[in-house]
Amino acid sequence: MHHEQHLQSSDTIRDIVIGMSDGLTVPFALAAGLSGAVNSSGIVITAGIAEIVAGSIAMGLGGFLAGRTEADHYASELKREYEEVEKVPEQEKAEVKEVFAAFGLSEKLQHEVAEEMAKDKDKWVDFMMRYELGLEEPKANRATQSAITIGVSYIVGGIIPLSPYFFIADSTQALYYSCGITMICLFVFGYFKSKVTGQPAIKGALKVLLIGALAAAAAFGMAKLINGQH
Amino acid sequence: MHHEQHLQSSDTIRDIVIGMSDGLTVPFALAAGLSGAVNSSGIVITAGIAEIVAGSIAMGLGGFLAGRTEADHYASELKREYEEVEKVPEQEKAEVKEVFAAFGLSEKLQHEVAEEMAKDKDKWVDFMMRYELGLEEPKANRATQSAITIGVSYIVGGIIPLSPYFFIADSTQALYYSCGITMICLFVFGYFKSKVTGQPAIKGALKVLLIGALAAAAAFGMAKLINGQH
Repeated sequence: MHHEQHLQSSDTIRDIVIGMSDGLTVPFALAAGLSGAVNSSGIVITAGIAEIVAGSIAMGLGGFLAGRTEADHYASELKREYEEVEKVPEQEKAEVKEVFAAFGLSEKLQHEVAEEMAKDKDKWVDFMMRYELGLEEPKANRATQSAITIGVSYIVGGIIPLSPYFFIADSTQALYYSCGITMICLFVFGYFKSKVTGQPAIKGALKVLLIGALAAAAAFGMAKLINGQH
Repeated sequence: MHHEQHLQSSDTIRDIVIGMSDGLTVPFALAAGLSGAVNSSGIVITAGIAEIVAGSIAMGLGGFLAGRTEADHYASELKREYEEVEKVPEQEKAEVKEVFAAFGLSEKLQHEVAEEMAKDKDKWVDFMMRYELGLEEPKANRATQSAITIGVSYIVGGIIPLSPYFFIADSTQALYYSCGITMICLFVFGYFKSKVTGQPAIKGALKVLLIGALAAAAAFGMAKLINGQH
């Protein structure tokens, strides 16, 4: 017996990855950039928390509204397809045939398939939604759950690089600890993210680490540069 | 003659929307948060630029690596499907039948469709990729283009709320201008974003405006709160 294994991560895991990915990277890079410029953990913390609040709301609420929009869009297209199979069934049958023509099926089979599908309106509409329009039915409450998961993951991810600044007043020294902790977390996060999405784990972990390090180094350099001018 | 209009935004427009959406929101909210706490445009600019650099790299490079991963994944699954139609054709035919069974087609039609599809290996594999695995072939150079578009859009979006701080030394006063300019830009951006994605334009514009305003207000309040403690 032959089995195919195609890994598919759940929506929740996907949301955690989205939120934590940016949460670990951007507040870390911002804190690193400011550490090089202002030399005060107080300001780094203020800016870091402001960015975490802003980022988690922007991402979370953005995810929520995107989810709602998707659900509205699906509902309106569904209504339209039901109307169309009533009003212009021949046109809709032709559209089913077009989909199967693209698979390389013969005229005869296209016709038979379209006729058979037209017998069950629910399945017919479902087919048009998925294969003509490429729309999947969004899960109920998906938008709210998604918003909370992304937002909380962003906060959790963002607090990690910021934590040393709470305990060490000198921001340059806090930066060393922040780099150490965050690099480890980025690697571990990248490792599990790759495992979950079915990618090579070490390679994936190094990619995530690279993005974080590059963003932080660039922010640090840029902040130093600007601060020389102000 | 009956025409269906299903708006589909291009990949580039989608990338601009992704980048600018966060670019207009997060640096704006961060600047607002810091304005309430530090009262120095110099620090707001340093933090704002550091955030823009960090955010654009994290989003751009993140998009690039995600695109590369997607392309790698597609290539490896494609190779696997070609191997499978060679080695276990009956199993693969059964999988085609399963897809069509889900559409509600009769056993007889499922069988005919599977047999006909098996005649052209390229189309057969293409079908399995799209409808069994739900994978679309990623466009060549998509990853690089996507990274640049998202990154640049983030920078453009982020510079807008920051611009008043370059000209006004008092960060509280600069914040008023920043709010004014950014609110207008968020509304205009939200309007065009909604037009492009086929959503109600005014409603969409207000949603985008709401996210920006909420994120900024929360960041402002939180930064004020923390700053009282340091």
